[in-house]
Amino acid sequence: MKEDFKPGDRLKIETDEGVLEGVLMPRPGLAGKNHLVLKLFSGYNIGLDASKIRKITLVERHQNKGKSDVLELKPQAGKPTVSILSTGGTISSKVDYHTGGVYASYTAGDLVATVPELSGIANLKSRMVMNVMSEDMNPKLWAKMAECVAEELNHNSDGVVVTHGTDTMHYSTAALSFMLKNLSKPVVFTGSQRSTDRGSSDSFLNIVCSTAFAASGFSGVYLIMHGSMSDNYCLVHLGTKVRKMHTSRRDAFKSINSKPTAKIFADGIIEPLMVLPERKPGKVELDSKLEEKVALIKIYPGMNPKIVDFYLNEDCKGIVFEGTALGHVPTTIKETSLIPYLEKARDKGVVMAMATQCLFGRVNPYVYSNLREVSSRGVIYCEDMLPETAYVKLMWVLGHTTRPSEVKELMLKNIAGEITEKSAGEEDFLEM
Amino acid sequence: MKEDFKPGDRLKIETDEGVLEGVLMPRPGLAGKNHLVLKLFSGYNIGLDASKIRKITLVERHQNKGKSDVLELKPQAGKPTVSILSTGGTISSKVDYHTGGVYASYTAGDLVATVPELSGIANLKSRMVMNVMSEDMNPKLWAKMAECVAEELNHNSDGVVVTHGTDTMHYSTAALSFMLKNLSKPVVFTGSQRSTDRGSSDSFLNIVCSTAFAASGFSGVYLIMHGSMSDNYCLVHLGTKVRKMHTSRRDAFKSINSKPTAKIFADGIIEPLMVLPERKPGKVELDSKLEEKVALIKIYPGMNPKIVDFYLNEDCKGIVFEGTALGHVPTTIKETSLIPYLEKARDKGVVMAMATQCLFGRVNPYVYSNLREVSSRGVIYCEDMLPETAYVKLMWVLGHTTRPSEVKELMLKNIAGEITEKSAGEEDFLEM
Repeated sequence: MKEDFKPGDRLKIETDEGVLEGVLMPRPGLAGKNHLVLKLFSGYNIGLDASKIRKITLVERHQNKGKSDVLELKPQAGKPTVSILSTGGTISSKVDYHTGGVYASYTAGDLVATVPELSGIANLKSRMVMNVMSEDMNPKLWAKMAECVAEELNHNSDGVVVTHGTDTMHYSTAALSFMLKNLSKPVVFTGSQRSTDRGSSDSFLNIVCSTAFAASGFSGVYLIMHGSMSDNYCLVHLGTKVRKMHTSRRDAFKSINSKPTAKIFADGIIEPLMVLPERKPGKVELDSKLEEKVALIKIYPGMNPKIVDFYLNEDCKGIVFEGTALGHVPTTIKETSLIPYLEKARDKGVVMAMATQCLFGRVNPYVYSNLREVSSRGVIYCEDMLPETAYVKLMWVLGHTTRPSEVKELMLKNIAGEITEKSAGEEDFLEM
Repeated sequence: MKEDFKPGDRLKIETDEGVLEGVLMPRPGLAGKNHLVLKLFSGYNIGLDASKIRKITLVERHQNKGKSDVLELKPQAGKPTVSILSTGGTISSKVDYHTGGVYASYTAGDLVATVPELSGIANLKSRMVMNVMSEDMNPKLWAKMAECVAEELNHNSDGVVVTHGTDTMHYSTAALSFMLKNLSKPVVFTGSQRSTDRGSSDSFLNIVCSTAFAASGFSGVYLIMHGSMSDNYCLVHLGTKVRKMHTSRRDAFKSINSKPTAKIFADGIIEPLMVLPERKPGKVELDSKLEEKVALIKIYPGMNPKIVDFYLNEDCKGIVFEGTALGHVPTTIKETSLIPYLEKARDKGVVMAMATQCLFGRVNPYVYSNLREVSSRGVIYCEDMLPETAYVKLMWVLGHTTRPSEVKELMLKNIAGEITEKSAGEEDFLEM
């Protein structure tokens, strides 16, 4: 294979098995010298062995001049402007075909270069705001993301797409749901389960649907990923009601205690599944103050109750318990009971909240006498909020007030769709 | 209402609205003096206001002589014998209609008395082995349960039903799956989401299906609960592959990374969904030794990595991480990285294992370089095992050996269905 073709070039390739046309993807790792990867119009990437290639013809040279962390294409009048902010993760990663491992390296600019369809949807700006795999995300980085998003939205962007690792993407969407006030435009998080340069990567449909939604007439923080195993549509999940429920499937994200807000297809057609807030005028307000000393504790039989003491000693200001079912913790057997530890935490002024490890359904502090033992120690029962969302929200609430009555009021107030009205979400349970 | 009727009596009651026939349920709490609760043949309980009752006729006097924790009905030749062991929980609870709270009080004998259909299925023995709500269950109680079950099975019982609180029932089924070796007969856990004396309690169908399955020709540890919101069938879940996924719905339990093993209908008809091991001769061997100093740590952005130190200081012998997706922990950012703590744990000889907080799917230590950073510190990646099952299994494995190579071998060996062959369970994901 000649070396005079560059990623983003549209090529026609004749092989022993037939003729393929598509966009050349950036070179994969060590083994790449004898391989090239072509993104077909179907969105699928295909790896080609150089020895089997008979002829390569350049159909169209890629327009982007050189690789850069910041890319701004020539704007077309009448089209909305969407900023693509890359933060890292698989969607920004390349496979090293030698080791089989995946390394972070794609920038948002690379993405735009390899998915030419995007420029048909919107005028695109792209910027790499960090390069962090999602297992390494943390509250400080959420605040930085929120700041970058607000900056884009308040400087002539009509919508933002944040590309993000999938593992903790739902923690980040929950954080930005609280941090972006008066959010008048759409903010869409997306990622991929297989890296962009891999055959059958899901990133193509995800980025196209996310860009289309960011260019749409809606507002709010959403997470958009595949809605099925096929490449036919994506689902638009509310940022506070979504969770990664599968390690590897492309439809890994599910809305919990809520329907997804909409379906979106590769051609940009949006099929709302509930009423969505509309785009409106006005500046977005950044409100990213967090109390970082908050813990999430999962409850389980045989757990060491002194774990609460550990967090008190670490000067923790808030604890979210991921209780069993309706919000239970070990209560009545002296050796394992958490009650004395809850009392210590309460006496120290540590805010305690309760969500459920069932994930689906609503906690309730009244049904059983043992629940009343817990709630009477001041534990706030967080309705049908996901444990991950309750954790992020408690950080955010404690960043704003430490007065117990205000903290409780805010925790139980629906701020960003995190609490569903009683019984509204009851039917949204999983089918097997 | 006259006081000469006893729980279990079959009554015909004439009210202003019509005539009802059913079995009198034990008296509910304080408000019960002006109420009675009748179990109809449909399985539903109905509360009746005494002032609206015109006439009560005794159809059949209940045969059981007085209330007792141990009940043994007259055996009928040709029927299998099933032992019902009650451990507590909602299925053994009554509502206090004065406070609306629920209190543990039903014994297995009460259950048998109020579900006369059971004696048509099998010869029944029943015994209350403990009275603990499931949030207070712990490893010592699992061992006691296993001991009682083995005792029953080795003394002329053909199957056992364990009634149990639902919150942590799946931890208990996992524990008994490992603790009962050479399990030649069926052991079925069941419970209810609404107490047995409540109208629309799910306990009737659950106990009937569980008893029918315990009398069947299969073997193994299973959890049987409603398969849908209606009272039409139950699902038979493998004890190591099941989890409570909803706080309150009667179909709260779902098989994860596996299909349910069977459907079972109220008439006892079993519809297998996979090949089930058959009943065989031979004594059950009790193997309940556990190492209790094992912790389950959920990974999340912003977590305090010193949590590992806490468990090391508490002389913990094993840690199961509920990692993000494929089995990640914070790795590359110095302030939040768990790597130095994993190294300390490894150097202290603490066994570490990895499962996923996605619940669905398989962990994999090879896909990303950050995963290799974790697995190279000796963390055992537990395939598609549920975190709760991995936690229980690690306790059990460490009760048998502390040699690292043997621990690893046992953790990765499929002992009780807890590991599904690669890709076999991939399609069993939730539909929304």
